[in-house]
Amino acid sequence: MQKLKQLLTDLEPAIADIINQPGSPRAVYEPISYILSLGGKRIRPALVLAAYKMYATEYSDEVMKVAQVVEMFHNFTLLHDDIMDNSPLRRGQDTVHEKWDDATAILSGDLLQIEVYEKLAEVGNVEILKLFNAMARELCEGQMNDMQFEQMDVVSNESYLDMIRQKTAVLLGFSLQAGALLGGAPVDEAQKLYDLGISIGLSFQLMDDYLDSFGETAKVGKRIGGDILEKKKTYLWNEMWSRLNEEERTAVLASYSSEESAIAFVKQTQESSGAKDFTLKLAQKYTDQSLSALTELNTSGDKTYLEEIVQMLAGRES
Amino acid sequence: MQKLKQLLTDLEPAIADIINQPGSPRAVYEPISYILSLGGKRIRPALVLAAYKMYATEYSDEVMKVAQVVEMFHNFTLLHDDIMDNSPLRRGQDTVHEKWDDATAILSGDLLQIEVYEKLAEVGNVEILKLFNAMARELCEGQMNDMQFEQMDVVSNESYLDMIRQKTAVLLGFSLQAGALLGGAPVDEAQKLYDLGISIGLSFQLMDDYLDSFGETAKVGKRIGGDILEKKKTYLWNEMWSRLNEEERTAVLASYSSEESAIAFVKQTQESSGAKDFTLKLAQKYTDQSLSALTELNTSGDKTYLEEIVQMLAGRES
Repeated sequence: MQKLKQLLTDLEPAIADIINQPGSPRAVYEPISYILSLGGKRIRPALVLAAYKMYATEYSDEVMKVAQVVEMFHNFTLLHDDIMDNSPLRRGQDTVHEKWDDATAILSGDLLQIEVYEKLAEVGNVEILKLFNAMARELCEGQMNDMQFEQMDVVSNESYLDMIRQKTAVLLGFSLQAGALLGGAPVDEAQKLYDLGISIGLSFQLMDDYLDSFGETAKVGKRIGGDILEKKKTYLWNEMWSRLNEEERTAVLASYSSEESAIAFVKQTQESSGAKDFTLKLAQKYTDQSLSALTELNTSGDKTYLEEIVQMLAGRES
Repeated sequence: MQKLKQLLTDLEPAIADIINQPGSPRAVYEPISYILSLGGKRIRPALVLAAYKMYATEYSDEVMKVAQVVEMFHNFTLLHDDIMDNSPLRRGQDTVHEKWDDATAILSGDLLQIEVYEKLAEVGNVEILKLFNAMARELCEGQMNDMQFEQMDVVSNESYLDMIRQKTAVLLGFSLQAGALLGGAPVDEAQKLYDLGISIGLSFQLMDDYLDSFGETAKVGKRIGGDILEKKKTYLWNEMWSRLNEEERTAVLASYSSEESAIAFVKQTQESSGAKDFTLKLAQKYTDQSLSALTELNTSGDKTYLEEIVQMLAGRES
């Protein structure tokens, strides 16, 4: 993890800079500072730098600003998604709408989004601005699809994968593509990095689904089986459901007589039906795609940063 | 009103274009189309064109896009403000969060904001992008100040005017400034148009406060006295309050025993205290400032479009 650690150290001043929100009235700036200071893996800005390092050696002001942009935009989506999903906790702390209120979370999110575009204007690259906008639009569409899937009984694997592509993967794709472009990569090479980011994102989200059932509480940092209790239409759930006959489906629904029995029975059924292995294999397939795409990239620069991040995300237990 | 009517006719295809929202999933695009189709005066895009016409004759693609930008951004703020203010109606129709739900209104607003920036990227003018961002930041700060003032017993006239400058006037200022710049106005002349927009905005909001007490229901299109019932800290209220002694203040508060008596008594007190005349005079002062600033502008172009809009807003009864 030496390489990722290096990137996170390089990012420290840029992250401290965006946490510092000196504006007035304080009531709209403090929540921005709060959510940005809650931490998280800072994977998105690390991806920007990792892609940049394949084509350039010294960081530019622009690449650091784009690293800030992706972290700020990610936190903007968390601010608003937590209201929409009615989530009380984020990284073990109160969400903004819980600690303050909905109006504050909406408005602070709007302001954070404007700060994102202020940074992009400072970068002054219209091509990157357009790529960012296309990504942001898809991400909103993905969030709406996610909310609509919650009302549905069955979601096809194809629809689900397309939704997580929009909701999670496109921001990882943009992070790599923009980092590469700023490092001087040719447009078609940067596009390959976008595709690579999509593979990473799909693998990342499938692992998230997997860990919700089969991770360890101490490592994942939240209660295991949360998705199961919500009957969330994850890939793991849909794959299981599609493999069950009527009788088995009835048994699954009957297990919801208590939370304990539901979690235990659904986990067992996800395993016995083969859905667990199938999901893990698909995640591994996307990881393998990422690694082979990385090998094929036409650069003599340092690929080890990105390689380490891909390996880390694939093997993560949290 | 010939000139304004002309501008609104010129705007029709551009407005129809932004109402048309063909994207998918429909659930996130329909609310955008809905709020944009509710109408309103379209003053902001008209201001963009009016300023442009002082420096150029033929419309450019860019100026029409900026006209779309200010109307879209205005509607984005309405979408989110209506949630924050818990407003059930907008232009006599259900607000988006009432017709759909909060999550839909938040997400559709976020997407509309992204569409604003897509348009700005198409315009491709980094200077205008920076001016827009500074304006948008101030507008968010103004909305937070407005929400905080609702919790306060007394708001100084200075603070109130600064809040309505941020919340209402800066977008009018930007509309004129951007229109002028795209028409080829020198930077200092465009700055004067920004200031002129601030004066228009202050006058506009003071007239809004005035009409809430002294307008006619049929013309204003909403119940007269709504601000009074909420004890909203408008300029009119603050000015009245500052002119009353303890005994008179107690009488005002006592009148809230019924809605009817509160509206009647507060209106009467706003008049007898001199607050009504004072507010109207201040609105007129800002209008006069706008008109004299217009006279002093150093252009041989057609000022009659903007002049008519200023006169219309000053004399409006709705």
